[in-house]
Amino acid sequence: MMENEVFLSFTFYSTILILKMYVVAIITGQVRLRKKAFANLEDALRNGGLQFCRQDPDVERCRRAHRNDMENIFPFLFLGAIYSLLDPSPTVARIHFLIFCVGRIIHTIAYLLQLRAPTRSVAYSVAQLPCFSMALQILLATTPYW
Amino acid sequence: MMENEVFLSFTFYSTILILKMYVVAIITGQVRLRKKAFANLEDALRNGGLQFCRQDPDVERCRRAHRNDMENIFPFLFLGAIYSLLDPSPTVARIHFLIFCVGRIIHTIAYLLQLRAPTRSVAYSVAQLPCFSMALQILLATTPYW
Amino acid sequence: MMENEVFLSFTFYSTILILKMYVVAIITGQVRLRKKAFANLEDALRNGGLQFCRQDPDVERCRRAHRNDMENIFPFLFLGAIYSLLDPSPTVARIHFLIFCVGRIIHTIAYLLQLRAPTRSVAYSVAQLPCFSMALQILLATTPYW
Repeated sequence: MMENEVFLSFTFYSTILILKMYVVAIITGQVRLRKKAFANLEDALRNGGLQFCRQDPDVERCRRAHRNDMENIFPFLFLGAIYSLLDPSPTVARIHFLIFCVGRIIHTIAYLLQLRAPTRSVAYSVAQLPCFSMALQILLATTPYW
Repeated sequence: MMENEVFLSFTFYSTILILKMYVVAIITGQVRLRKKAFANLEDALRNGGLQFCRQDPDVERCRRAHRNDMENIFPFLFLGAIYSLLDPSPTVARIHFLIFCVGRIIHTIAYLLQLRAPTRSVAYSVAQLPCFSMALQILLATTPYW
Repeated sequence: MMENEVFLSFTFYSTILILKMYVVAIITGQVRLRKKAFANLEDALRNGGLQFCRQDPDVERCRRAHRNDMENIFPFLFLGAIYSLLDPSPTVARIHFLIFCVGRIIHTIAYLLQLRAPTRSVAYSVAQLPCFSMALQILLATTPYW
């Protein structure tokens, strides 16, 4: 697998996206501290008092961005790995990974900066195209083994 | 790996379940539009006004179904892949994958159509059985390497 | 892959953590039954009446612990698998996996038992260290294939 150029390319983009998700987690923590809005009593107590155990719209926005990442990036980690093993054209494969990666980065930026609709939805939809393409190619290759 | 019949079977069922999750995401979006209930201000503004930035029980139901999928289908993607590499009986392996796949599809239907309890919980529990079985077999095979 | 000692070690710790997540799911269900706090009307109806379709702080705490697991353990399943294929020192690799595994178990205990801050955050941060280390090593190895 580590001599398969497509798989290595997939691995690169996947790791970038996982680091991107870690960044969203770090931003969430920073917004919690700045806005003083904690989900847990013990965190609020350590940061000023029980009244800071509360919701905040900016924190919720970060959490929605993170959740959407989980809903979409985690399936990509599976589909991209299997697709890489199907011996696809390296150029076509790289286009799949690049579209997904750029789409998801724009999705996060559009979410966190509250860009005007439908920027975020378009980024989400574009990023789903390579995922559907990979899923269909996997089904075509594996249907005999159901 | 792509000549391993069990792995290809696992891949087929996994991809079906990922597509099933994408369908839940699409349904969530449709329910948001139909019930006019958006999580983000920018989406509400584009679809009629700020008053539509609100929660809706049908949207929340879709989101719970999706989250439960993440909690259970993503671990299956890992356990099933490793289990496939343990050289299990193809028939027994396929039974594992089929039970999980059918269980999770029934779980989603029961969730979205609000079927009478405990339909959903039974589907969830049955789908967990092959997961526990695979996890235990993996532990048995890998404990010497802890 | 199943003759790669590092990969087998990774597989062992990953399966332990997936079982740990299943335990959190089971605890959540038990707390829902004990506190009579259900997310779905159909579950409340089966367990005493519509008034038990309600939120509960203990249930929400379990759900936050579970969500945090998804945000962090699922990326580990990917990073650890790829890192194992990079031919790392078995001892160094095992230290990576062990730190992550112990950190995440302490994180769950700190969350569910509401231990004093910053126990939970420290466990989270320590567990992220091997993840960042593995991500950087993967990027170093795969950047030529972007």
